[in-house]
Amino acid sequence: MKVGGQHFRTIWLKPGDECVIQLINQRFLPHRFVIEEIRTVKQMATAIREMHVRGAGLIGASAGYGMYLAAKEAAASGSFDEHLVHAARQLKATRPTAVNLSWAVDRQLKNIAGAKTADEKIAFALRTARLIAEEDSEQCRMIGQHGLKLIEQIAEKKPGKPLNVLTHCNAGWLAFVDYGSATSPIYAAHDRRLPVHVWVAETRPRNQGSKLTAWELSEHGVRHTVIADSAAGHLMQRGEVDLVIVGTDRTTHTGDVANKIGTYLKALAARDNNVPFYVALPSSSLDWSMRDGLKEIPIEERSAEEVRCVDGWLEGQQVEVRVTPEGSAAANYGFDVTPARLVTGLITERGVCEANDKSIRALFPEQAP
Amino acid sequence: MKVGGQHFRTIWLKPGDECVIQLINQRFLPHRFVIEEIRTVKQMATAIREMHVRGAGLIGASAGYGMYLAAKEAAASGSFDEHLVHAARQLKATRPTAVNLSWAVDRQLKNIAGAKTADEKIAFALRTARLIAEEDSEQCRMIGQHGLKLIEQIAEKKPGKPLNVLTHCNAGWLAFVDYGSATSPIYAAHDRRLPVHVWVAETRPRNQGSKLTAWELSEHGVRHTVIADSAAGHLMQRGEVDLVIVGTDRTTHTGDVANKIGTYLKALAARDNNVPFYVALPSSSLDWSMRDGLKEIPIEERSAEEVRCVDGWLEGQQVEVRVTPEGSAAANYGFDVTPARLVTGLITERGVCEANDKSIRALFPEQAP
Repeated sequence: MKVGGQHFRTIWLKPGDECVIQLINQRFLPHRFVIEEIRTVKQMATAIREMHVRGAGLIGASAGYGMYLAAKEAAASGSFDEHLVHAARQLKATRPTAVNLSWAVDRQLKNIAGAKTADEKIAFALRTARLIAEEDSEQCRMIGQHGLKLIEQIAEKKPGKPLNVLTHCNAGWLAFVDYGSATSPIYAAHDRRLPVHVWVAETRPRNQGSKLTAWELSEHGVRHTVIADSAAGHLMQRGEVDLVIVGTDRTTHTGDVANKIGTYLKALAARDNNVPFYVALPSSSLDWSMRDGLKEIPIEERSAEEVRCVDGWLEGQQVEVRVTPEGSAAANYGFDVTPARLVTGLITERGVCEANDKSIRALFPEQAP
Repeated sequence: MKVGGQHFRTIWLKPGDECVIQLINQRFLPHRFVIEEIRTVKQMATAIREMHVRGAGLIGASAGYGMYLAAKEAAASGSFDEHLVHAARQLKATRPTAVNLSWAVDRQLKNIAGAKTADEKIAFALRTARLIAEEDSEQCRMIGQHGLKLIEQIAEKKPGKPLNVLTHCNAGWLAFVDYGSATSPIYAAHDRRLPVHVWVAETRPRNQGSKLTAWELSEHGVRHTVIADSAAGHLMQRGEVDLVIVGTDRTTHTGDVANKIGTYLKALAARDNNVPFYVALPSSSLDWSMRDGLKEIPIEERSAEEVRCVDGWLEGQQVEVRVTPEGSAAANYGFDVTPARLVTGLITERGVCEANDKSIRALFPEQAP
């Protein structure tokens, strides 16, 4: 999407230099736009581990490009296979719970094994890295096209009036290669000149909403307003929200949705006020093995320091301020599970379906029950 | 309640010096405990306006003591009545929407008018100021005694296990003269050695939960854990909350509850998980004129800067950091309304009742329908 009027993806091969991967280092957003150059597997591992890049789709793409760099390094090392396996392990260890990470690394390993010469292996690895990024982008683009229809239906009912979409956390293009999941229908509507306006929940404790989603929307020119997470219910009571769209880290084939902590409260408010609540996701986020999201999805507990402190900008410096008393404990649950009964529908790259096993499987019939 | 092992109220007459009111200046909490000395009406007006003191009960008590200082200044000025009326106007203008403020000022004006000499007027004013503070404290104490029974009922069902109470914002003793409203049952349970543990929602954007409630509980020795506002639903889904108790800025006689933004979301989660949701309030917060809280209670929109920025402590300094992009709009709704249907009951100084007109009036029969 656009940054300062120019089109960007989150990661790409440097034009004119096939030895360098460029990516947006997201740690400095929204206050500084930093493009980082990655030349080694080690640098890519650091970028993933230290969250210069984050989000399921983007982690997968980064791992794909990381394995391309690994193939180049392996060819130079003299012992190709040994080096490649070591690099694969190194990349997988950076974010052990990210499904797309090991998926992308394994896909590369399999592809590279199919080539004969070292040069061919490097060429295969680059092609696959590009393909992974391209597929991610295309899936997100399709989510946008299917979600756009939902926004257009609302637009028909209130011609000329603002279309208010509420979102939580960052399921934006910064979490993928381009377009995003929850934001893709919003960008599609904006690009069609529909008067879309986004309520951006700040998403404490890490503020991915106020830092990343607000920045994305701002740079692409989409009208938006940042709110405290607590304000979502009030806005829905007042009729100020036409539609909620969020992303997901994992959705069961029965329609239970694990997503950033606070998603469940927004779903409850949507239900109480008859506001449609949609979850946008590439099908790679569907978990075909779990039936009961509440019981089965493990919820990561993160560092309490994220609740005790807030990081932001002060006179050009990124600093962390403390907001709790020294003696107070804090707890930091990363995600919650929104039960399927509160979800109006899922927006996937193949279309929109209801949040239940039958409807999901109808879109993905190749999945054995 | 206790601070560093010593009992404090939020405001008091300085022992041995009837010319000075002392109060806790809450602007520096939780990082510095500052006692401020107030000698003039002007200083008291500043303390109220600049929120050195805040909360309905404490604002009323501060206005009461402010009018005592006004009577002393009026006696010294030579034109008693003129000076007193001017001071009354000055105090009322500090927080125009605070009901307890004008109520306390008017009560003082009426009482002082009943005295003859200037000395008598000063004595009347001091007695009334003390009475206002004493009544506030006693009402809160009684809320604690009635609320304690609810906690004891839960304790009977899970002997020896932690009793988890969730609260939002600061309806603590810092908002009143002592005890608090929502916190009073918690302190009563703690003082009875019940194993109470409090989930403190941080309450963005001003963080009254993480700054004030956490500090209060910490100083009094009550076990507690600060959480992001978004985590409340997840905790209830996991059975980690036995009871929600919040305060209120205004509750209609039909049981609709206006309180800090985010209260409604917590009430929705409580209902969805069969967790009792109580509102603790002195009867001065009951509004006998409004029937429909959602339609009739005006919701204050505060400065968007509170959402754009977070203030906290950095290397001993209180600073404000920015968390949104420069170009992003923000909105800051101060309160929301929780409809009566989501409220299990009200805890008042006269006892516990249901959140409906009939049950509320049964406790307050002197209110003409």
